[in-house]
Amino acid sequence: HDEALQARVQLALDRKTKPQGSLGRLESLALTLARIQGRERPQLQHPQMVVFAADHGLAARGVSAFPSEVTWQMVENFLAGGAAVSVLARQHGLALSVVDAGVKHEFAPRPGLISRKIGWGTADALQEPAMSLAECVAAIETGAGVVRSLPGNALLLGEMGIGNTSAAALLMARLTGEAIDRCTGRGTGVDGPALVRKTEILRQVLARHAEATDPLAALAALGGFEIAMMVGAVLQAAAERRVIVVDGFIVTSAVLVASRLAPAVLQRCVFSHQSDESGHRLMLARLEAEPLLALGLRLGEGSGGALAWPLLESACRILAEMASFEAAGVSDREA
Amino acid sequence: HDEALQARVQLALDRKTKPQGSLGRLESLALTLARIQGRERPQLQHPQMVVFAADHGLAARGVSAFPSEVTWQMVENFLAGGAAVSVLARQHGLALSVVDAGVKHEFAPRPGLISRKIGWGTADALQEPAMSLAECVAAIETGAGVVRSLPGNALLLGEMGIGNTSAAALLMARLTGEAIDRCTGRGTGVDGPALVRKTEILRQVLARHAEATDPLAALAALGGFEIAMMVGAVLQAAAERRVIVVDGFIVTSAVLVASRLAPAVLQRCVFSHQSDESGHRLMLARLEAEPLLALGLRLGEGSGGALAWPLLESACRILAEMASFEAAGVSDREA
Repeated sequence: HDEALQARVQLALDRKTKPQGSLGRLESLALTLARIQGRERPQLQHPQMVVFAADHGLAARGVSAFPSEVTWQMVENFLAGGAAVSVLARQHGLALSVVDAGVKHEFAPRPGLISRKIGWGTADALQEPAMSLAECVAAIETGAGVVRSLPGNALLLGEMGIGNTSAAALLMARLTGEAIDRCTGRGTGVDGPALVRKTEILRQVLARHAEATDPLAALAALGGFEIAMMVGAVLQAAAERRVIVVDGFIVTSAVLVASRLAPAVLQRCVFSHQSDESGHRLMLARLEAEPLLALGLRLGEGSGGALAWPLLESACRILAEMASFEAAGVSDREA
Repeated sequence: HDEALQARVQLALDRKTKPQGSLGRLESLALTLARIQGRERPQLQHPQMVVFAADHGLAARGVSAFPSEVTWQMVENFLAGGAAVSVLARQHGLALSVVDAGVKHEFAPRPGLISRKIGWGTADALQEPAMSLAECVAAIETGAGVVRSLPGNALLLGEMGIGNTSAAALLMARLTGEAIDRCTGRGTGVDGPALVRKTEILRQVLARHAEATDPLAALAALGGFEIAMMVGAVLQAAAERRVIVVDGFIVTSAVLVASRLAPAVLQRCVFSHQSDESGHRLMLARLEAEPLLALGLRLGEGSGGALAWPLLESACRILAEMASFEAAGVSDREA
């Protein structure tokens, strides 16, 4: 009956007072939201922006332009309301939660902070798996639990973790078979010789964990606590038919892993934007994802998801509020 | 001192808690808004969505997929709140006004409708100029007056007029020198042989008015009342340093004309989107405009401007609300 629903929604769109198809991606987005929610008039309720944060052992290898302590400092900034995602979530009425998935820092408890530390940062993946399989499974389950605990029918995913473009690039290379240099990008600002060094380190990490080929083993060996938790969040949100708003390179890498565990999760995803991180375009293409925006962002945090959010609301409003040709007394096109 | 202001805004952006440049187009948009308003923290107040509507004599030649009466029917739909632009303006808190610039219909007066009829539709441009020079000047002055009468510091332009992609294509061809077939597109849904016929008619219209080469003469011979009013609106809004949010193909054609009369108007424009109307990409390129969105829209009405509006608000909020590295106690990148 999915097809019957799609046909009804398409008909409703075609009867709206506009030339057929003239709202472009907004119309396909409306169809997607209707399909996810299984109803002709999708509604978005209590959207949750959840930012998963963790540290990475690999950061000590100099793969990032920023030092590791920026992870916890930015968590404080998210909670204080001064980060980009804080500002954008406020603008759009998105409830913001920050999950400590494994930051190397002790946070004082406070509203908006969800403490679910799996460890004090991952291990150095150049030497050993970033996390044990048990930690990885715990992180996935924890991420699922975080989603279960939150209200609403839409989940916007964000992340923070110095070094996590490296983890995302590693997962992309391993799970898609793309060459590591096509997966590795500037991250927060790594250029020139530093980018060559970053790529070389990631190549060595891949070689070190050549046996970690299935999604779970790859996630444990190469991933991060925040990425593993997002995998769990995606699986849970998809199972609950929540709309999953996918941000940039790192969130997409979590969706990639989740889709290898359960391909149907992709049916619940809205890809908010194509980031400026060089591997993102390719990763989106692998997922056959069509992002809504292309604004040259390379920040993460969920900032792209927040910026795209009003488009999801518009898609719902088009279906709910636009008049039909009949109701408005507007002549349809000449036969 | 424009350059000094730009430098201060750039510095403020670079001190925000994010890697430099990582907010991409949002940062260049913030710089644009600051430059337009001449201050470091631009603020958007009482944004006005103004939809100019008029009929076109050329419509009788079968250049549109819809009959002319759809123009007045859609004006009623705008005012009743059922059109796409009505829905999107409501979503984003944009005051919506509809200007009768020259619709072939008598409207009952009511709130939201600004009656400024120059005529009952333009003349058939295949036979004579679409309007006289006097009508054209009156329309420009009227458009300027409409803007003067409205509050706020941001103007979003929209339009409605069956046949007006033809007028826009004619203006584009005449003022840029592009071949008419590169300027002519589907409009509301003209395909195949009908598109060939549309292009051929427009070619004849251009030949008929070969002498109308300066911007004003071209506007009178080839344009429309709503386009001429938008030219005046753009000139006035630019002079008042309002932010001008440019919608799709037809609004952009008005900006093209205005820019030939006063090139500096382009400095006040934010190009909201690249539409699916085939000539739009090329017209934007001629104006060296970088649109924010590319959602495959081809509706007009101001719908693209409304959809992009939250990005303008985000750009202002980034400057006003994001914390600096110093204020948030976040470490900047390693030297």
